[in-house]
Amino acid sequence: ELKEELENNMYPVDLADILEGFEQKQMVMVFRLLAKEEAAETFAYMNSDLRELLINSLTDSELEEVMEEMYLDDTVDVLEEMPANVVDRLLMATDEEKRRQINLLLQYPDDSAGSVMNVDYIALRKEMTVAEAILKIRQVGLNRETIYTCYVTEKKKLIGQVDVKELLTTSESKLIEEIMETNMLYARTTDDQEDVAWTITKYGLIALPIVDHEMCMVGIVTVDDAMLVLQEETTEDISIMAGVHPSEESYFGTTVIEHVKSRIPWLLFLMLSATVTQMIMNSYESALAVMPQLAGFIPMLTGTGGNCGSQSSTLVIRGLAVEEIEFADILKVIWKEVRIAILISAALSVVNGIRIMLMGQGNATMAFTIGVTMACTIIIAKVVGCTLPLVAEKVGLDPAIMATPLISTLVDISTISVYFAIVSAVFAL
Amino acid sequence: ELKEELENNMYPVDLADILEGFEQKQMVMVFRLLAKEEAAETFAYMNSDLRELLINSLTDSELEEVMEEMYLDDTVDVLEEMPANVVDRLLMATDEEKRRQINLLLQYPDDSAGSVMNVDYIALRKEMTVAEAILKIRQVGLNRETIYTCYVTEKKKLIGQVDVKELLTTSESKLIEEIMETNMLYARTTDDQEDVAWTITKYGLIALPIVDHEMCMVGIVTVDDAMLVLQEETTEDISIMAGVHPSEESYFGTTVIEHVKSRIPWLLFLMLSATVTQMIMNSYESALAVMPQLAGFIPMLTGTGGNCGSQSSTLVIRGLAVEEIEFADILKVIWKEVRIAILISAALSVVNGIRIMLMGQGNATMAFTIGVTMACTIIIAKVVGCTLPLVAEKVGLDPAIMATPLISTLVDISTISVYFAIVSAVFAL
Ligand SMILES: [Mg+2]
Ligand SMILES: [Mg+2]
Ligand SMILES: [Mg+2]
Ligand SMILES: [Mg+2]
Ligand SMILES: [Mg+2]
Ligand SMILES: [Mg+2]
Ligand SMILES: [Mg+2]
Ligand SMILES: [Mg+2]
Ligand SMILES: [Mg+2]
Ligand SMILES: [Mg+2]
Ligand SMILES: [Mg+2]
Ligand SMILES: [Mg+2]
Ligand SMILES: [Mg+2]
Repeated sequence: ELKEELENNMYPVDLADILEGFEQKQMVMVFRLLAKEEAAETFAYMNSDLRELLINSLTDSELEEVMEEMYLDDTVDVLEEMPANVVDRLLMATDEEKRRQINLLLQYPDDSAGSVMNVDYIALRKEMTVAEAILKIRQVGLNRETIYTCYVTEKKKLIGQVDVKELLTTSESKLIEEIMETNMLYARTTDDQEDVAWTITKYGLIALPIVDHEMCMVGIVTVDDAMLVLQEETTEDISIMAGVHPSEESYFGTTVIEHVKSRIPWLLFLMLSATVTQMIMNSYESALAVMPQLAGFIPMLTGTGGNCGSQSSTLVIRGLAVEEIEFADILKVIWKEVRIAILISAALSVVNGIRIMLMGQGNATMAFTIGVTMACTIIIAKVVGCTLPLVAEKVGLDPAIMATPLISTLVDISTISVYFAIVSAVFAL
Repeated sequence: ELKEELENNMYPVDLADILEGFEQKQMVMVFRLLAKEEAAETFAYMNSDLRELLINSLTDSELEEVMEEMYLDDTVDVLEEMPANVVDRLLMATDEEKRRQINLLLQYPDDSAGSVMNVDYIALRKEMTVAEAILKIRQVGLNRETIYTCYVTEKKKLIGQVDVKELLTTSESKLIEEIMETNMLYARTTDDQEDVAWTITKYGLIALPIVDHEMCMVGIVTVDDAMLVLQEETTEDISIMAGVHPSEESYFGTTVIEHVKSRIPWLLFLMLSATVTQMIMNSYESALAVMPQLAGFIPMLTGTGGNCGSQSSTLVIRGLAVEEIEFADILKVIWKEVRIAILISAALSVVNGIRIMLMGQGNATMAFTIGVTMACTIIIAKVVGCTLPLVAEKVGLDPAIMATPLISTLVDISTISVYFAIVSAVFAL
């Protein structure tokens, strides 16, 4: 009855989650209770540690069944994460034809369309009638990840596509040729997986055909995988924007040492860059000795500058990522940010000036000086913040590196320079 | 021939893009060339300004055709953005039954499943045979956004679901009852659209049925809309993480004044919070007068603290968003971050100490003092950074507000406190 319970009430992704909490023996036992297809899908959703445990406990014939049932895109994902000896054992459990396909798929670079595609799809010929096409789907559909878009090929070349919706709502005697869409969207095996995912999002597709450089159809990327790609790429962007080298592993799946390694490079670089700020300040040591209260304004000025800069850079980075902004917009963006910066700096400078006078932190001259510094800081921060991501995109760098950590360090330098230039002029220090 | 060109070679989303670049007259002329369904889809993809222009130029009967062809989820989106008089004109161009449905949909709160769902889906009865079900799809499928998942209802209640893949690969004489999945996933009209989109992602669905509180089927949310919801929600998160009040408009679709309004609140709040840091520094004025070079280390210390804190908070915020981390993990997270912080602070303190000595910015005592301050700063920053988003989630706040801007302001306060406490002890100031 546990078996029935499992099969009726559980989805593979949840099963994988639950199995993670079990002990090895129990986990293997429960896994053996699953129906073939369910077992294969659950296996695909497990994390790599759990998979290795399981592989070591299953017999060769059990492993063969799993490998048999898994879709090839998932098989490739599994293999990519396994140590060589386990890969060998898994490939041994696969028939020759499939092994050949797997080896082909394993050759596509990480993050390419080829690395996330599936080679099982419904291929039709243009001479078929709708009725014949439906019959073909009946025969082979069960082993295809999606049957809802069918691809028309001629000598392996992709020449058209037909939706099952079209097949089911048109006359059965029509020829595929008459109803197929010949101007279909496609991507190449070497295209970036992120671009493929964007195409699927933008056009609301269920699958996108993938062709080689001769337009021969080699596979499809399905919408469910596109969603996972986008999620992964967004996490990557957000990590980079926080000065963390991205990893494909989850937070808990990453060891302490790996976390340290992915975080230290930016921290070191930024810490050493801050030396520039320090050198500028040191050159004003005598001014600080005379007016030590000048130092008190520094965290507020650099903080505000950093926040202003990161607002601009973050919005531009996201705009680039979702393709709302492109490099050609650079002047439009700068002009917009300058106007925004002027309004914001006016408001903040006035509020801060009032605060300084009310709290007795300085006279009108001090309030005015800090106000001017703040205005310059905000304008510089916003212009630098919006420009750098666009320039990065243009020169082929990832715009996400031009986010808060780098921007705030750069803004620190300009803020301190401006601040001491202004105060030493005003107070004749 | 332009007409043919347009219909064969263009997707509605691209057409909408191109029409944006045209002048009003030309735009209306090209729009009139489009086939009914294409025109309606293109209309749904336009921005609201363009739509208003177009509505003002179309005749009542042309408008009727557009309203007739649009899927209801898109209709509702269009209406939500229009001024009242335009809404009235659009509703006049709609037949009574549809108007009733639209008014129902308009009542669902923004960001709810109801607000993004479609009411057109394929409903089957459990007594039907597979052949009858396919016949039904043939008859009504053309007007449904997706036909690939069909829903079995009984007295309007959702009792099962069948994939078209199943219908097409099983015997035509079987009853729907025999093949339907009764343990299906669903969401309620009032559920958050983001949760619905996550369910669709997690389980790789093409559509999710939406039911009311009595389990009566009221609509579906399709995967294409789920992808747009996730994109919108991620942009929202990223904006909040940069201290920008999120808007549903694009960067260029937002006026300068609106940008200022969405950016100023956090900047003001953070600027005023920095007063605390300033007050602490002012209480050490005499120390700074004696050793003004102490000020030079401040931007580096606060910068490093801010970067460390935002690394931790960003990873935790993203972990929460993709449901890899939850509040119950709080101790596990803190323990991990403490170990990471110890290793990072050891490395950075040593590098920085060597730098100080090499650059002649201080003796060994100074290097040691800065090192200790930096270690404390990093540990505090990482613990605060990882804790606050989890606590926010727990108390029902958006974890995204606990990102870089707020964290770095808080870390500034602790850094300055620690720094002056340590230096005044070491140098007896
Ligand atoms: Mg892969
Ligand atoms: Mg990647
Ligand atoms: Mg990438
Ligand atoms: Mg797949
Ligand atoms: Mg899959
Ligand atoms: Mg990227
Ligand atoms: Mg929203
Ligand atoms: Mg809506
Ligand atoms: Mg919608
Ligand atoms: Mg939300
Ligand atoms: Mg829709
Ligand atoms: Mg749509
Ligand atoms: Mg959110």
